[in-house]
Amino acid sequence: MRHINDLSDLTMEEFRELYKLTSNIIDRPEGYTEACRGKVLGSLFYEPSTRTNLSFSTAMMRLGGSVVGFSNPNSSSTAKGETLKDTITMVSNYADIIVMRNPNEGAAKAASLFSEVPVINAGDGGHLHPTQTLTDMTTILRLRGSADNMKIGICGDLKYGRTVHSLIHFLANYENVQFYLIAPRELAIPEYLRQFMNEHKMKFYEVSGLEPVIPMLDVLYMTRIQRERFADIDVYESLRGIYCLTAAKLRDAKKDLLIMHPLPRVDEIAQDVDDDPRAVYFDQARFGMYARMALLLTLSKQPRIHMPKNIPGRPNLRCTNPKCITRKETYLPMETHRTREGERCIYCDQLVEYRRMRKFNMDYEY
Amino acid sequence: MRHINDLSDLTMEEFRELYKLTSNIIDRPEGYTEACRGKVLGSLFYEPSTRTNLSFSTAMMRLGGSVVGFSNPNSSSTAKGETLKDTITMVSNYADIIVMRNPNEGAAKAASLFSEVPVINAGDGGHLHPTQTLTDMTTILRLRGSADNMKIGICGDLKYGRTVHSLIHFLANYENVQFYLIAPRELAIPEYLRQFMNEHKMKFYEVSGLEPVIPMLDVLYMTRIQRERFADIDVYESLRGIYCLTAAKLRDAKKDLLIMHPLPRVDEIAQDVDDDPRAVYFDQARFGMYARMALLLTLSKQPRIHMPKNIPGRPNLRCTNPKCITRKETYLPMETHRTREGERCIYCDQLVEYRRMRKFNMDYEY
Amino acid sequence: MRHINDLSDLTMEEFRELYKLTSNIIDRPEGYTEACRGKVLGSLFYEPSTRTNLSFSTAMMRLGGSVVGFSNPNSSSTAKGETLKDTITMVSNYADIIVMRNPNEGAAKAASLFSEVPVINAGDGGHLHPTQTLTDMTTILRLRGSADNMKIGICGDLKYGRTVHSLIHFLANYENVQFYLIAPRELAIPEYLRQFMNEHKMKFYEVSGLEPVIPMLDVLYMTRIQRERFADIDVYESLRGIYCLTAAKLRDAKKDLLIMHPLPRVDEIAQDVDDDPRAVYFDQARFGMYARMALLLTLSKQPRIHMPKNIPGRPNLRCTNPKCITRKETYLPMETHRTREGERCIYCDQLVEYRRMRKFNMDYEY
Repeated sequence: MRHINDLSDLTMEEFRELYKLTSNIIDRPEGYTEACRGKVLGSLFYEPSTRTNLSFSTAMMRLGGSVVGFSNPNSSSTAKGETLKDTITMVSNYADIIVMRNPNEGAAKAASLFSEVPVINAGDGGHLHPTQTLTDMTTILRLRGSADNMKIGICGDLKYGRTVHSLIHFLANYENVQFYLIAPRELAIPEYLRQFMNEHKMKFYEVSGLEPVIPMLDVLYMTRIQRERFADIDVYESLRGIYCLTAAKLRDAKKDLLIMHPLPRVDEIAQDVDDDPRAVYFDQARFGMYARMALLLTLSKQPRIHMPKNIPGRPNLRCTNPKCITRKETYLPMETHRTREGERCIYCDQLVEYRRMRKFNMDYEY
Repeated sequence: MRHINDLSDLTMEEFRELYKLTSNIIDRPEGYTEACRGKVLGSLFYEPSTRTNLSFSTAMMRLGGSVVGFSNPNSSSTAKGETLKDTITMVSNYADIIVMRNPNEGAAKAASLFSEVPVINAGDGGHLHPTQTLTDMTTILRLRGSADNMKIGICGDLKYGRTVHSLIHFLANYENVQFYLIAPRELAIPEYLRQFMNEHKMKFYEVSGLEPVIPMLDVLYMTRIQRERFADIDVYESLRGIYCLTAAKLRDAKKDLLIMHPLPRVDEIAQDVDDDPRAVYFDQARFGMYARMALLLTLSKQPRIHMPKNIPGRPNLRCTNPKCITRKETYLPMETHRTREGERCIYCDQLVEYRRMRKFNMDYEY
Repeated sequence: MRHINDLSDLTMEEFRELYKLTSNIIDRPEGYTEACRGKVLGSLFYEPSTRTNLSFSTAMMRLGGSVVGFSNPNSSSTAKGETLKDTITMVSNYADIIVMRNPNEGAAKAASLFSEVPVINAGDGGHLHPTQTLTDMTTILRLRGSADNMKIGICGDLKYGRTVHSLIHFLANYENVQFYLIAPRELAIPEYLRQFMNEHKMKFYEVSGLEPVIPMLDVLYMTRIQRERFADIDVYESLRGIYCLTAAKLRDAKKDLLIMHPLPRVDEIAQDVDDDPRAVYFDQARFGMYARMALLLTLSKQPRIHMPKNIPGRPNLRCTNPKCITRKETYLPMETHRTREGERCIYCDQLVEYRRMRKFNMDYEY
């Protein structure tokens, strides 16, 4: 592995190594306080995200390293009309490793094309957020010992929740995982994930009620219904707060249930659940910091690589996704990967369209 | 001591220990450059405050520690509707000690209920700002040797000036301190402080003129009339600039007078005073940094403590103060301390009112 | 040298020492990772500038030092009406060295009057930006071995481009440098620089076309036409993009040409140039970081000096430049240096005017 755009960039072998390192750090953090001494993390947050930002910064500092960067776009050179490509090239001249959060889908993938140092995707719009899944898996493995043979309930926004999609994908690597997908029709799991689970022989049940399934679960993963993801605010208002886990609803739950949440929560978990020993969502945050320490330590050992800056693509292709980074950074080389539905953008994974070439398209090279 | 919400959280014994440590750091800072190596300070500034923010950050760095956090609310998770309780629980998972500035009164007290690590109040609205008083006392003790037997003039906004109130409270611990309270009627000292001084047999004189009293003083503490504290801007405009200390007015002042100011100043001290050896307000800022080093070093040695997250309060109580943190964070357990005037909110110290319980009040628990 | 307001604050002797140190750091950075351990850089950015900000912060951290400060004015005490003088006095109480970017011309010079620690000018409006020139010279010397006997083309905004003016000034220290000044009439080099070059017997040719001169050049320095510098946006629109260096235009260029740019670029250099080995503008950014390391290391060794805070000036003088720091910070002592055209402001180098003294002018002292 060099960059972490998606968790699929790790082989299971590499993931196991990473988890082993994470466990060692949790068991004796004092052994790693100088592990990244002299290394600099470039932390580029094009949209605010206290949690992820603090988690990465703290992780680097607990390794003895330093952090530079910005936490909002206004204090970035983009204001002067600089391309992402140039910003990344510049920062990779200063830093030994880069973490980026960006509102455009595929931004981290784009950054990795030009960076001389490893790039970690800390969230690219509603697309990917691999270190959240790393956090979730670390929590499950650390507290359950294994992710095999478990019944996991996932509740809330299964349609837009990127952490949910990513978790389901990753759990395909484990044996006999059964899913209870708890959501209203409007927020049901996307069709492509149903196909994915069927192809991988993963058992899943789609239900709309939370309470009935709780007693069966080994893990209950609650999610926030995010205003940011809704085009229509009324739809959001009609759906927010439809699920609220309370102490009362946990009466018949298993004694060793793990109640997880990526945080921040709004009202999907009542505060009277917080003191229940099965509520591990705050521990989850700490495990996430340790997992990021392991990731930073591993990636920061890689040598600097000079990258070609001008990459030929297929200018007659165009991504159909208005939020795709290629719409904003028009010089990006268009490439695709084939899927059943057709060719998909390598950046945001949405379908592409062909267009007749015109002179002005050539300008994209400039 | 565990948290520092108010300076009253310290016993005089603890304060003397702290001052002794501060003095040692001032005398040989090089002995402390690794004292907090590996420790992380969580710096949560919900409103900008360069001075306090830089002072704490520099203090931590001069101890060899690191700093993470934010310096304005926009880059915080609160934007996503997260409660203070959850933000603090998260940050206390990452950091070894927390410093918080918040516009709501009682915010730091609220934070200390949930934090697994020590919380230092760096200002909660117009309520408390203990490290400013620590700065003031360090300056007086360091430059005068003692705070006993002194005549101190306090000039400017005695009504809203929280640093003034806090300083008066703390000086009750010393012998024979005489106060000259210099303010226009509109900004006179609050009645409860008059009572406090009478109860503690502290001599004080209220005057409206600055010049006449200057010759008598051992310490002159000037304050800024803060626009932020005024509801009516006209009242502010009519009062700003009524006091302006100039070199000329110091002609008959004592040779060993200490001229202090919490800073920033606007025009209450003319610049021709700056080079007077008795003007110590800039040294005061440096002493403040050393006092914060001592505080951080002392608190950071405490073990992490798991705190219950769901605390039963008295839902039939309500704070009458619209700026109280309990108005914004409605899940906070209401409790009071008794005073002559009645029961006061444990967060912001304002009076509380009783209300008839209705179903929706129960929601406060959720 | 104590402060770096302009590169002219360095003697050639000092500059050679600095370049020697820079070279040593480039050759073996591992030898300097603890060189500034325990030192604190105060980084005061009154306007955003990712590049310069990151470069200085990274430089300090790679020396083992720490950084405190702010990257935008909103999180600064100036919001509370504090003078630059007080802010600098405060920060110089906390930090061992100060770097400042400020939109007002002469701001760094003003800061250096009051700071107890060295101040580095990281850009004061359109006036000076010495560490950019340091970056440019380091790049030329490192890649060419010498700046003597070279033909350098400077293209784009020669009227407002402060980095261009500064570079021309500094190259007066070298033998047989020939300039090709490539700009449209509206952005031609200022008259005073023509005089400067004539006085110093520096050969220069003013042309409007880029392509014809390329084959002659040893160095081609491209610049961005900056929107910020134009009062009239239409003029900006008519001029932006008139020069665009492409791979095609480099066909007849020398094999060892150096293509430089201060960055960020917009469209003055096409992306198909980026992979040309002669394109060194991204390496330039890295050299800049190393030059700043050398500068920080050198300056941070100086002892703290107490500065008088109240400096008498000539209140009957007034700078004619509306962007001059003396217009905003009216207490600043006015002084001038004589030039052929008349007396110039020591802060922004613009002409001054005499005025009849009135009572209210005296207020400037307060």
